[in-house]
Amino acid sequence: MSSPASGASAHGNQRFDLTAFLESRTKLVNKALDTFLPRETARPATIHQAMRYSLFAGGKRMRPALTIGAAEACGGRLADALPAACAVECLHTYSLIHDDLPAMDNDDFRRGKPTNHKVYGEGIAILAGDALLTQAFEIIAQAKARPRYSHQDMVLELARTGGSLQLIAGQVADLEAEGKKIEAEHLKYIHERKTSALLCCSVRLGGMSANCTPAQLAALTDFGYNVGLAFQIIDDILDVTQTSEQLGKTAGKDTSAQKATYPSIVGLEKSRRLAKQLTDAAFAALRIFKGRAPALEALAQYLLVREK
Amino acid sequence: MSSPASGASAHGNQRFDLTAFLESRTKLVNKALDTFLPRETARPATIHQAMRYSLFAGGKRMRPALTIGAAEACGGRLADALPAACAVECLHTYSLIHDDLPAMDNDDFRRGKPTNHKVYGEGIAILAGDALLTQAFEIIAQAKARPRYSHQDMVLELARTGGSLQLIAGQVADLEAEGKKIEAEHLKYIHERKTSALLCCSVRLGGMSANCTPAQLAALTDFGYNVGLAFQIIDDILDVTQTSEQLGKTAGKDTSAQKATYPSIVGLEKSRRLAKQLTDAAFAALRIFKGRAPALEALAQYLLVREK
Repeated sequence: MSSPASGASAHGNQRFDLTAFLESRTKLVNKALDTFLPRETARPATIHQAMRYSLFAGGKRMRPALTIGAAEACGGRLADALPAACAVECLHTYSLIHDDLPAMDNDDFRRGKPTNHKVYGEGIAILAGDALLTQAFEIIAQAKARPRYSHQDMVLELARTGGSLQLIAGQVADLEAEGKKIEAEHLKYIHERKTSALLCCSVRLGGMSANCTPAQLAALTDFGYNVGLAFQIIDDILDVTQTSEQLGKTAGKDTSAQKATYPSIVGLEKSRRLAKQLTDAAFAALRIFKGRAPALEALAQYLLVREK
Repeated sequence: MSSPASGASAHGNQRFDLTAFLESRTKLVNKALDTFLPRETARPATIHQAMRYSLFAGGKRMRPALTIGAAEACGGRLADALPAACAVECLHTYSLIHDDLPAMDNDDFRRGKPTNHKVYGEGIAILAGDALLTQAFEIIAQAKARPRYSHQDMVLELARTGGSLQLIAGQVADLEAEGKKIEAEHLKYIHERKTSALLCCSVRLGGMSANCTPAQLAALTDFGYNVGLAFQIIDDILDVTQTSEQLGKTAGKDTSAQKATYPSIVGLEKSRRLAKQLTDAAFAALRIFKGRAPALEALAQYLLVREK
């Protein structure tokens, strides 16, 4: 991903400074994560070092930013959104650690750094993922209950998103699709679960932390879903159309890994049309906030209107 | 483990039929687990088959039995204890699947059946563990809140037990101790976290489901802790003193695997004395229930007063 552009955009608030927003919110999220997690020296030190290695590996904190952006759009307080923001980031990081394992995608590097199992070994990497997943629930249970949303609602939201019908279903379907010819419906199923599910959950938990109305929650769900799916299709398109230099990573990686992509299944033209439709739908979902969701607009702009 | 003996015991209720108790409660727990989990055919079928393979692999359901026994001791209703009973069993099963992985203990068989990764492959086994861990939180969030215990209390109880300072800490310390000479304190640290933590949590959640008093909760905590540690020391003793035939599994396995055991560190005599002290403490903790904890007494009798 490139640096988030500040300023003017086709859809977004003209004056919203996304770079400043991400910077300030990331700082707060990092501080909160540091407080929620056991110290690096807590016994046994290895596991806490491994958890923190991946959690503080320079991720962009897009999901926490979405959570906070959604909370602010619904008139909530930033402090109330922090537990949810940290919980989704722990869940996200656990899924990356496990996805990178030799038995899964077998990746040696992530964000330019050796993956967790390359540094700590497979056993500890599996346990670090387990620990971050468990930590996510310990954190979300500490979020403030709201008049419309109980602790139960928030824990269930996170558990169902992370469970065998959503996030894990996506990873399983992805594993099983490798090297096979799949239909567009199947690829959509994977993207919805591997990406959209947690983006939905991120904005929904943000809304809940702000005691959002049912209509706002529905709009956030719609927004998260469309942003997630559009983001994946755009990723697929860029993988085909851009050179490695433009992308900042190996182009054509999906093709060479025999991973099914939207362009390879429905063609480039239709992929572009789909991405456009989903992007429009994402922005349309925000209309209910009447301009009071500048962070979400800017984040969608950043994630979906990009050239790398 | 042998078949639970019915009838007379040194400590237990003279007429409590543990076999009948375990049989009837296991049936209910299995039915509840079947209802909580997605169908075996739910997409993607592989993950749901893998989850159910290990969850219904013939485990004795000792932890759910402890949960239900604790709830009944506190005057609670069995139905109210079922979500907690199912949640601890899902957490326990996830930990077994991950512990058996090649990167951990590398076990090919458990309870006479091939381990999860031998049947489904490592990738799916890791994900099946992840899914059961997540499922545990989805289930505990559905337990009924009680006047003294909120959803938040119950989720935190499970999360802290399963987290990097307890269950996962035990597994990490165990991995790191392999082949090394360790002190008795270190072995105690491992057993407390690998075994006592979840037994404590099992009875505590049972008590919570029955809206137990703070004094009852403290007694259950004490009971779970002592049962867990005593159980492990007795396991170590039996591994040294019994033949394989008597045990029904390979004797001396710990010694040959260079695993530290109580007898190898503090000697057989002191191990026996410790086990006796802890067993007595476990039964003493139940005094507060004035004979209304027959299931817990019988379970402790079964787990701690045994010859294999």
